[in-house]
Parts: sequence; structure tokens; C-alpha cells
Amino acid sequence: MDEFSFINSIKQNTYKQSSIVKGIGDDAAVFRQSSEDIVIAKDMFVEGVHFTKQTMDAFHVGYRALAANLSDLAAMGAIPAFYLVAIAIPESWSEGELDQVYKGMKELGEAYQMDLIGGDTISGNDLTISVTVIGYTEKSKASYRSNSQDGDVVFVTGTLGDSQAGFHIINHHGQYIDEVFYKERHRMPTPRIEFVRELQGVSRVCLNDISDGIASEAIEIAQASHVNLHIFDEKLPVRNTFDQFPQSLQHKWKLFGGEDFEILGTVSKDDWAMVEEAAKKTNTKLTNIGYVKDTIDTTGNVFLHRSNEKVEQLEKKGYNHLRR
Amino acid sequence: MDEFSFINSIKQNTYKQSSIVKGIGDDAAVFRQSSEDIVIAKDMFVEGVHFTKQTMDAFHVGYRALAANLSDLAAMGAIPAFYLVAIAIPESWSEGELDQVYKGMKELGEAYQMDLIGGDTISGNDLTISVTVIGYTEKSKASYRSNSQDGDVVFVTGTLGDSQAGFHIINHHGQYIDEVFYKERHRMPTPRIEFVRELQGVSRVCLNDISDGIASEAIEIAQASHVNLHIFDEKLPVRNTFDQFPQSLQHKWKLFGGEDFEILGTVSKDDWAMVEEAAKKTNTKLTNIGYVKDTIDTTGNVFLHRSNEKVEQLEKKGYNHLRR
Repeated sequence: MDEFSFINSIKQNTYKQSSIVKGIGDDAAVFRQSSEDIVIAKDMFVEGVHFTKQTMDAFHVGYRALAANLSDLAAMGAIPAFYLVAIAIPESWSEGELDQVYKGMKELGEAYQMDLIGGDTISGNDLTISVTVIGYTEKSKASYRSNSQDGDVVFVTGTLGDSQAGFHIINHHGQYIDEVFYKERHRMPTPRIEFVRELQGVSRVCLNDISDGIASEAIEIAQASHVNLHIFDEKLPVRNTFDQFPQSLQHKWKLFGGEDFEILGTVSKDDWAMVEEAAKKTNTKLTNIGYVKDTIDTTGNVFLHRSNEKVEQLEKKGYNHLRR
Repeated sequence: MDEFSFINSIKQNTYKQSSIVKGIGDDAAVFRQSSEDIVIAKDMFVEGVHFTKQTMDAFHVGYRALAANLSDLAAMGAIPAFYLVAIAIPESWSEGELDQVYKGMKELGEAYQMDLIGGDTISGNDLTISVTVIGYTEKSKASYRSNSQDGDVVFVTGTLGDSQAGFHIINHHGQYIDEVFYKERHRMPTPRIEFVRELQGVSRVCLNDISDGIASEAIEIAQASHVNLHIFDEKLPVRNTFDQFPQSLQHKWKLFGGEDFEILGTVSKDDWAMVEEAAKKTNTKLTNIGYVKDTIDTTGNVFLHRSNEKVEQLEKKGYNHLRR
């Protein structure tokens, strides 16, 4: 394969975003944004670490790489605009497979009117994709983890633990109910962009996306906002076929599983109806799972209320990307 | 190592750029820029492909990864502001080495008042760094490859072929003159940010940075601008000790070697004095190496005038990142 013809094959002929000045084809891309704040996130997705050809098709690899980044924009309350892709390609990946990787990104990107505006294409031993996404929010309206306050409602979108359940199904052959649903939740997670877009009228909302498990994300909010989050185990939303899995796995996946890319948030009781309205309008499952309380010290914590009346303090047991 | 403590270790306590709204510590970074155009570039740098522990120390790996991106900003005429780093870390890299990688980036970033505002930290089999850089230019003042026009002077900064000479020295033990210079040019190339900053008063300038060899970069300009570039072999600037290497290697390295990260540009004869002034002011070696001529068809070409009066058409023989 030739680098230059490959770049030509992924280059857009037209750009959808009006803020674009120069797309792919020079040393860098150029855009202009005077009325809104610019939000930027970046991650990396590596074969053998995050996926294998057994767990995902090439199309899914691209889709999932962009979806994870879009979820970060959603968690900031931002509307997506652009993405850049750096990719290291091993010999074991064919040109057809690469086309599928970019097709996966393109399909998702086009759903949000995003433009691919740059990146890098090199050789490597493991397929490695790093995506950078850029989005916009109204000035000073990004929804930080530190926005949570005493008395807030704690909410979460969608259902929890699905991605890990899907990963389990992919790796353990057997008879499962709802197999397609769970697999797709692992391979093609839905960044909650539409839902978040409808929250723009809410004066203060705290958002975090669930990439490392709800426990870990809730602790991030608690620590950044210096509050305690109280969450009710029984209220945690799961798929109606989730009880087919062993109880210990259900517990682990829904609390610490990660990669569901749902939105965990908190909002004042007064604005809760607006959040419900946003969910209804975008056909997003939304669940009130607890409440926020002031903490007497500066360290925020998360407490899980079990059905047996016991309260347990949650710890960051989510996926730690460097712990071995 | 723990991911969270690692992120804390690289997190800046204060930010230098006034356009920053939110740095590291949330799902994404936020900045604001209403008066200038925003320039963004991204690349990827992989152990075993671009470097090994034999060719570069950890410090150099970080330095070089950021330098290559800064060179892209320079080639757009942009002033650097931010960078994001996604890194995949294998077990074979110690915490101390990682600190050095970030130190290499930090040292270079700080020289340009840049802030590290985000990224991702994961495990991987080969050390892989993807850097995204963001810079600013005055509105509509980015210096594109398509800016070249008939009658322009063709110029280049610095000396050519040094990085490849350095790479040769590192891999072939022997007695060399100027060994430290060449090795450093491979490991710590200088992005020409200062020089480019002084070109802001020039009404039209065409710039491209030399990452793939001057032949390849000149062809990019010729094709994007629909002009022919005429370059004189004898004028191509090389280090005064470059003649210690075999003639065939000299020829190959200076024309097709790449990774020198010098700036190749074209500018009208009227503005040539301003470019000379910018070079003088920033202590940058600058050489007039040829001229631009209109082409009768739409395909631009590059012609190398040899000392024997022969003229040869140059082809893209630079490093093609995917050709095997």
C-alpha cells in the first residue's frame, strides 16, 4: 500500500462544519471559532490490549475508537465538530480491513456532522489508533466533574455492565439471551451526544462518562466536587436479561465494568425535570440512582446502599490502564 | 505503576496560555480563541519503527515526538499553544524512563510557552506516542503549500541530510568528524518556530517542513500550487563536514533523507529581503536554492539543476511510511 494514495482514499471532498478553514492536505488543519469554547480530547486504542480481531471486526475497531472519544465530548456537554486519526498499521492488516476501520469511524462521525481533518499514517507491529476529537460548547458552559453540589440528584443514562457482558459472551461460547445486544454494546457503544445536547438549557450540570465503571467515575465526581455521592444498588439500571449472568459477575460488571460509555451526572432537584425532558426527547433511558450530600472534609466519597440496608464505600476498582 | 499517580505526575500546576479554560483533569480540555485561527496537527511515533532504545534515549524520544509536531505548526506559520499526548507503555519501559520521555517534551514545550492539556495513558507492546499540537495564526494567514507563485524565490533553512547522517553514525560505529552535531540533529531536531514567527509581516509565503526529504516536500508544493520548482544542487546547504560521507550517501540524504525538520519555502522576490531579515533576527541559516516557474499544465514538478548543467526531474523518493 502507498501512504499517499491511502490518505487520498480517506480524504473528504467536502466539509460539513462551517468553522473549517483548511482540512486534510497540508501540514496541519485550520479552523476558526470565535463564539464558543473549544473542547478537545484524545485517546489511544491498541490491538491486543483493547481489542483483537477475535473480539471486534475492523469496522467495530474504527467505530469504537471514535465512540470513546465522542463520549468524552458528551461528558463535557460539547457538540462534536472534528476528528483527527493517527494510525499505526501492521502487515497483518489488509487494505480492505483498513477501509473498514475508517468506514467505522466515518459512519459514526457523519451521524454527528463531523469532519476528519488530519492525522498520521505509519507502520507498526500492533494496530494502534489514536483519535483526537474537537467539539464546541457555549462559552463557560462545559459540564465539569467539579460541578456537583449538595442536594443534587444523581442520574445515569442507559444500562450498566452491558459492554463487559458482551465481552464475556464473545470470549465464552454458549447459549445466551440477547446475545446480539450485548455484543453490539461492546463493539458499537453509543456516545450520548444527543441527550447532552438537550441539556444546554440547564444552568449547572455535572457530567462524567462511564469508561472505567460507574464506581470509578462517581468517585471522580465526588473528589472533584468535594461532595459525597450516595447511590442505591437496586436503582442501578441493567438490561432486563442481565440476570442470566452469575450474580457476582453482574455486581462486578455494573459497578466496575467500564466501557459502557453511558453518562453519569448530577443536577439540582429543580432542574431534574429538564433532564428528564432531555431524555424523553432523545429517547434515552434515564435513571435517578441517588443523591449528593456535602462532605465535612475535603475528600469526597461514594457510598453504595445495598438492598440489605448495608452501606458500603466504593473504591476505584475500575480498569486501571497501567496496573499490571 | 498507577495510571492516576502517573497522570498527576505529568499534570501542570499552572498554565501559561491565557486561552486555556480547563487543562488536564476532566474528560477533555477546554480553550477559547476568538481572535485567531486555530491550527492543529497530530502524529504518531513508534518504537521499532521510528526509534529504538539504541538510537535514542528516553529524553530524546519525548523531545523528538513533540519537535516533529512543532515543525508542522511552523510549516503553517503558526505559534504553538498546546499539546496532548497519548502514550502506550510496554513493561520494558521503567517509570524513570517515562519521566524522561515527558521531560523531553516538557523541555521543548516550555521553550515555546506551551501547555500540556490532555491525552491518554495505556499499556502496549511497543512504546507508542501520539502527540497532538495546537497553535494559532492571524486570521487567514496560515502559510499553505498552495501559496507558491511564478517568480518566487525558493529557500530552505538550516542544513540538509544531517538527521540521516546522525542516524548512520549511531548505527555504524567509526571515527566521524562532528559526531555530536549529527547525532543531536537526529535526536533533537529544531522546529523553526522563531524564524516563522518573524515572517508574519510577509503578505504571502509558502511553507512546508522537511519531514520526508526536500525532494518530496518540494513536489508537494509544486503539486499544491500548480507551479514548477527549479532547485540548484550546488546551492543545497549542507554542514561543512558533510563531505566526510560517501558521495552517494550525501546525495541521498540531502535530497531524500528526511527528518531534518527544516523549512522549505517560497516567497516573492519583493519580500525576499524580509525573509532574510527574519533569518538574521533569529540566527537561522537561510539559503536561496532556486526559483518558481509557472507550469503549462496543472501538474507541478520539481527540477534539480546539477553542476554538470544536466537537469533532472525529482520524484517522491522520500520515506513512504507505508511502503514495505
